Amino acid sequence: MKILIDGMGGDFAPEEIVKGAVKAAHEIDETVVIIGPEAVIFEELRKNRWHGDNIEVVDATEVISNHETPAMAVRKKKDSTIVKGMNMVKDGEADIFISGGSTGALLAGGLVILGRLKGIKRPAIAAWFPRIGKEGNTLLLDCGANVESKPEYIFQNGLMGSIFVEGITGNKMPVVKLLNVGAEEGKGDDLHKEAFEMLKASGEAGNINFEGNLEGRDIVFGDADVVVTDGFSGNVFLKGSEGMALAIMKQFKSKLTEGMVAKAGAMLAYSKIKEIKQEFDYSDAGGAPILGLKGAVLKIHGNSKATEVYYAIHRAVDYVERDITGMIADAVSKSESITSKLFKSMLKED
Amino acid sequence: MKILIDGMGGDFAPEEIVKGAVKAAHEIDETVVIIGPEAVIFEELRKNRWHGDNIEVVDATEVISNHETPAMAVRKKKDSTIVKGMNMVKDGEADIFISGGSTGALLAGGLVILGRLKGIKRPAIAAWFPRIGKEGNTLLLDCGANVESKPEYIFQNGLMGSIFVEGITGNKMPVVKLLNVGAEEGKGDDLHKEAFEMLKASGEAGNINFEGNLEGRDIVFGDADVVVTDGFSGNVFLKGSEGMALAIMKQFKSKLTEGMVAKAGAMLAYSKIKEIKQEFDYSDAGGAPILGLKGAVLKIHGNSKATEVYYAIHRAVDYVERDITGMIADAVSKSESITSKLFKSMLKED
Repeated sequence: MKILIDGMGGDFAPEEIVKGAVKAAHEIDETVVIIGPEAVIFEELRKNRWHGDNIEVVDATEVISNHETPAMAVRKKKDSTIVKGMNMVKDGEADIFISGGSTGALLAGGLVILGRLKGIKRPAIAAWFPRIGKEGNTLLLDCGANVESKPEYIFQNGLMGSIFVEGITGNKMPVVKLLNVGAEEGKGDDLHKEAFEMLKASGEAGNINFEGNLEGRDIVFGDADVVVTDGFSGNVFLKGSEGMALAIMKQFKSKLTEGMVAKAGAMLAYSKIKEIKQEFDYSDAGGAPILGLKGAVLKIHGNSKATEVYYAIHRAVDYVERDITGMIADAVSKSESITSKLFKSMLKED
Repeated sequence: MKILIDGMGGDFAPEEIVKGAVKAAHEIDETVVIIGPEAVIFEELRKNRWHGDNIEVVDATEVISNHETPAMAVRKKKDSTIVKGMNMVKDGEADIFISGGSTGALLAGGLVILGRLKGIKRPAIAAWFPRIGKEGNTLLLDCGANVESKPEYIFQNGLMGSIFVEGITGNKMPVVKLLNVGAEEGKGDDLHKEAFEMLKASGEAGNINFEGNLEGRDIVFGDADVVVTDGFSGNVFLKGSEGMALAIMKQFKSKLTEGMVAKAGAMLAYSKIKEIKQEFDYSDAGGAPILGLKGAVLKIHGNSKATEVYYAIHRAVDYVERDITGMIADAVSKSESITSKLFKSMLKED
């Protein structure tokens, strides 16, 4: 198995990427392939005193930045880490591509170079969301691949998310819920009402374990294993929660360390803040897969450091080993008959 | 001025409603009118040892619950606090109606009994959102009145929100931003892209102080005074942030008070948690106005206690005194020429 990682993707590339790759390579038997300007990557490997034999370097001279128009950049920069990386997955030279680079370029590159799985309407970005009171994390999709959504996309997010969670965590038939403005059936705009019907039918057919709507405030308490919605509201939810978590942590840090009553109090507070920060931290979650492409792609946060890279490589091994891409392809072809039946009945009603 | 409050609206009615009303009535010259089953309200007033003369009681024998279909309940329950309350505002017997009852019934009642202001496409629920690093709060609208939105609705939210914030806080030309998936121009789905154009035109005409898009994570840091979006994503954002705040506070409370290093530490932690909780608390924000109706309506949270009721009554005085409803009506009629010009140019482009 070859795990390909973008050596130049993200704010702390290439240093932190190579550092994380070296750490992971020490622990796994698989080969880690780092793509980027050869000399730069080799220099980083030297700094990390790498002497093993399961890291390879592939030369790519260009980098696509966040400021470029994704579609244009993908077309023009043929020797960029993202374009070359996607081509390697396409050609079977790598089993999965991990990158902390431009999300837009990864999506554009994924669509143009890898293409969509047969039957998949649109790929989706799936992110792990922290939760309290329950083990593990919750998968949220779509987090922004398709801001212009359709009921079918949301429905397919349920299928893809369900398979991904089962494949990675071993949780058979994870609970799927639809993000909505109320928990009761019949809530929401037409988009979410129609998606609800499709998810419900899919649940009744035994393809997913659909348990209805949920509200934004319940996600963090682990009311579902997979939460599906359109890319606009998914993105807004994710960033809104992130902002709130950041703001509160910031306040605790400043308030609990100002005008201390006792040294003991400060120490106590510090260690607890750190503990809670970790709980609401996504760094061990191992990246956000772009599901629905003909190939495995794992997007990691642009501000990823060695720890995030390290976990992402471990997750990538599971992803490939359990053949999540193949499982999604199978599930979609199986579910097509339900979907088309449902489409027909919906058309009749109109 | 007569401030009308629903004595039976919310989880802690009538006890907490009457308690809050009594507290506020002691401080203001205006008359507070409590609507609800007469005997029940009088009994509560007795319990609170009320002997003043600026509280009146209006009898209403029915209550609309959260489990009823709003439109149906409003049609059937003519003697409910909400229907009777709205009628009193309509007939000039009260200047504003405050209620912690069913949001759906308040919206339905508002639309059917009061009606929309001339030129307003849809009323919106506006909520105050806490912020750190900057004085005051941020107004977010729409928080769920219209989950099925149109660019015009979002555009009008900008106008209405701007006037409300200026009227209440005195902040001339507050900064208005559009909630979106990215801060750059051109981001989002068609709905938000078109709303952006309309808000921009309104800004150029000097009607509002529009400063572009913002992402969900920046709202809590006070990047804008008014944040506008559709009712679906506004609701998802608000509840998502609320859930995250609740979850983190819960963790701090349990972690900082378990296995204490020192008594001093515990005391310190307790008082600081309380301080921060207050900062991210909405109780002194004074309710969420339903803007765009021919009459002033203030929705307070269903779990409001006396403190929330007390603040809402104070805010209600400002609302009426500054004639926010009249200001919105004026602004909409003034902005109509811009809007219609914009509509025409949009139609031409199609």
